[in-house]
Amino acid sequence: MLNRRVILALALLAALPGTAVAQARPANPLPSWNDGPARHTIIDFVTRVTAEGSPDFVAPAERIAAFDNDGTLWTEQPIYFQLAFAFDRIKTLARQHPEWRTKQPFKALLARDMQGLSVTGEKGVLEIMAATHAGVTTEDFRKAVLDWTLNARHPRFNRPYTELVFQPMLELLDYLRANGFKTFVVSGGGVEFMRPWMEKVYGIPPEQVVGSSGVVKFQTNGDEKGELVKLAKIEFIDDGPGKPVGINRFIGRRPIFAFGNSDGDLQMLQWTMAGPGARFAGLVHHTDAEREYAYDRNSKVGKLDKALDEATARRWTVVDMKHDWKVIFPSEK
Amino acid sequence: MLNRRVILALALLAALPGTAVAQARPANPLPSWNDGPARHTIIDFVTRVTAEGSPDFVAPAERIAAFDNDGTLWTEQPIYFQLAFAFDRIKTLARQHPEWRTKQPFKALLARDMQGLSVTGEKGVLEIMAATHAGVTTEDFRKAVLDWTLNARHPRFNRPYTELVFQPMLELLDYLRANGFKTFVVSGGGVEFMRPWMEKVYGIPPEQVVGSSGVVKFQTNGDEKGELVKLAKIEFIDDGPGKPVGINRFIGRRPIFAFGNSDGDLQMLQWTMAGPGARFAGLVHHTDAEREYAYDRNSKVGKLDKALDEATARRWTVVDMKHDWKVIFPSEK
Repeated sequence: MLNRRVILALALLAALPGTAVAQARPANPLPSWNDGPARHTIIDFVTRVTAEGSPDFVAPAERIAAFDNDGTLWTEQPIYFQLAFAFDRIKTLARQHPEWRTKQPFKALLARDMQGLSVTGEKGVLEIMAATHAGVTTEDFRKAVLDWTLNARHPRFNRPYTELVFQPMLELLDYLRANGFKTFVVSGGGVEFMRPWMEKVYGIPPEQVVGSSGVVKFQTNGDEKGELVKLAKIEFIDDGPGKPVGINRFIGRRPIFAFGNSDGDLQMLQWTMAGPGARFAGLVHHTDAEREYAYDRNSKVGKLDKALDEATARRWTVVDMKHDWKVIFPSEK
Repeated sequence: MLNRRVILALALLAALPGTAVAQARPANPLPSWNDGPARHTIIDFVTRVTAEGSPDFVAPAERIAAFDNDGTLWTEQPIYFQLAFAFDRIKTLARQHPEWRTKQPFKALLARDMQGLSVTGEKGVLEIMAATHAGVTTEDFRKAVLDWTLNARHPRFNRPYTELVFQPMLELLDYLRANGFKTFVVSGGGVEFMRPWMEKVYGIPPEQVVGSSGVVKFQTNGDEKGELVKLAKIEFIDDGPGKPVGINRFIGRRPIFAFGNSDGDLQMLQWTMAGPGARFAGLVHHTDAEREYAYDRNSKVGKLDKALDEATARRWTVVDMKHDWKVIFPSEK
C-alpha cells in the first residue's frame, strides 16, 4: 500500500499546475543584470518581503507591483510606439479616405513631410489619434493593433516593436511573479492599445493593464446583440497625478513595488513609497545611446528631470542602463 | 536515497499552495442548490467549457465570470445597503455637523422622518451621498466602510449586512474558481464601498471588483508624500449600458459567464452572450418573501422587467430563489 501511495504522490507532484511550479525560485535570478547596486537592491527587497518571519514580510495578496510601460518595459524613441502605430494606421486607412490627400495633418503625414506635420502641433496629433483610435468597435481595434505588432518595423532596429522590450525587465517581471507578486502595467499609453499583446509579451493579462482610455459606448444592433464602439473623446489620462488615481481605480490597493523612467511616473512612485512597511521605487535611466538611447532632462519623449532629483534625494533605485544591463533586447541573449 | 526523495515528495505535496488545492473539484458541487434546471444548467456549462477535447472547451485565461452584487450576491431590500451605510454614516458624522439639525435632507434623516426625507427626492439622496462619500481620503473611507460592516445591523434580519450574502452564490463562486474561472464583481455600487470587504466575504480581491466611482484626486502634503482624496463628483456609473463599458475598461475581455438580477444587468448579459462559443447568462429572481424578499417588475429597488422578458425569450437561466435554493444565508446552513 505504501508503494502505491508513494507512486501516487510522485505522480501528483509531477502534475503540479504551472502556478505552483512557477513558485520555485530560480537559482540565479535576473541573469541579464550586472551584479551591482540595482540588482542587489531588488533581490534584497524581494527576499525581505517574502521571507516568513522577516520583519518586512508582506502577505502575497499585498505584493502588488506596478510598471510603467513606455521607456520602462519597452523603448519609447524616437517617438512613442503608439504614435508610430497611429501614423502607420493613417497610411492603411488612407485608401478609404481620399480627402486626406489634401487635408492636414494627414496630407503631411502621407507625404512623409515631418516638418509640415510638426507645424500642425498638438491639434494635428489629436486629429490623427481620433482618426485612428475612434469610430471603430473595440474588437476591430484589437485586430488592428495585433496586425500592426506583426507587420510594423521600428525604423532604427528594423524589427517588430514588441521585440524592443527590455530583457532585464522581462526577467524582473518573472522574478517578482515567482515570488508571489501580482504584476501590473500602469502606463500613460492607451489601454486598448496595450492589452492585445501584453499577455503574450509580458505575461500580464488584460485585467492587469491600467492605462489611458477614450470613451467607449455600448450599442445594440437590430438583433439586440451588443457591441462596444470607441468614441473620439478622452476619458482618462493615466499619467503623472493620474497614475495613483488609476492605480486606486483599477487595482484598489497601493503597490509595494513600482518602476518607471520619467517624470510622468513621479506621483506613482511617491504614492507607492508613502505607504507603511518595506517598499521599492525604481527608475530606468536611459544612458546607452549605442545599444538603445541616451536621454533624460531635455528629452521631448520620456523626460526624466524632477523624478531623477527625487530619486536621488530619497535614494530610490536608479538603473543605469549602460552599466546595469548585460543585454537590452531579448534577441541579444 | 529513494526513501529520502519519497519523503521529500510527500512533504512537498503536503505543502502545496492553496491555489492548487482549490483546483480539486468537489464531489457534490453547489450543495445548497436544489436539484433542478438552474443547478443542472450551471454544472453542465462548467463541465463543457472545462473538459479538454470538448468542442466547447475554453482556455482558463478566458474563463471570466462577472457577477452583479446588489440582489445577486447579497440582499438589496428594503434599500440598497450602500444607502443604509450612507444613512448610518450621517448619524455618525452629525456630531461634527450641528448645522444638519436644521438643514434638509439631514434634518429629516436624523429625526427618522422618512416621509420628510423622501420629499427631498433624488437631490436629497445625492446630498447625503456627497456628505458621506466625499471630502475624505480613500484610506479613511475604507476604514469607515469596514467599521460599518462590523457594527451596523440590517433592520429586518438584525445581523451584519455582510452576513446577508447568498450561500448558494458563495458556493457558485467557489465552484467556478475551482474550475479555473476568474471571478469578478461588476456592480452599480461604489467601488470604494465594495472593495474593503469583498475579499474576505466573497474571495474576490479589490482588483477584481468593478463598480461605480467618484472622482479621486492625488494631492501631496508638505512632505511630498501623497494621498488620494474622494471628491463629490460622479465619474462613472457602472449600471445598465455602463456595465459592458465597465467590463471592457477594467477587465478588458468579454466574460463567458454572467449573473445578475435586475434590468441594470441586461446589457452585461447581452454583451456576455454576444460573443462566440459557449456562454452562460443567469438571473436571480427574488420569489421568496418568507426567507428573503419577493419582487420583480414593480419594485423600486432591483426592478426586473425587461431583463426577465429577454431571459425568457433567449432561454437564459432564471433562478427561482424559493424553489432553487435550499438556504438563503450562510447562517442557515
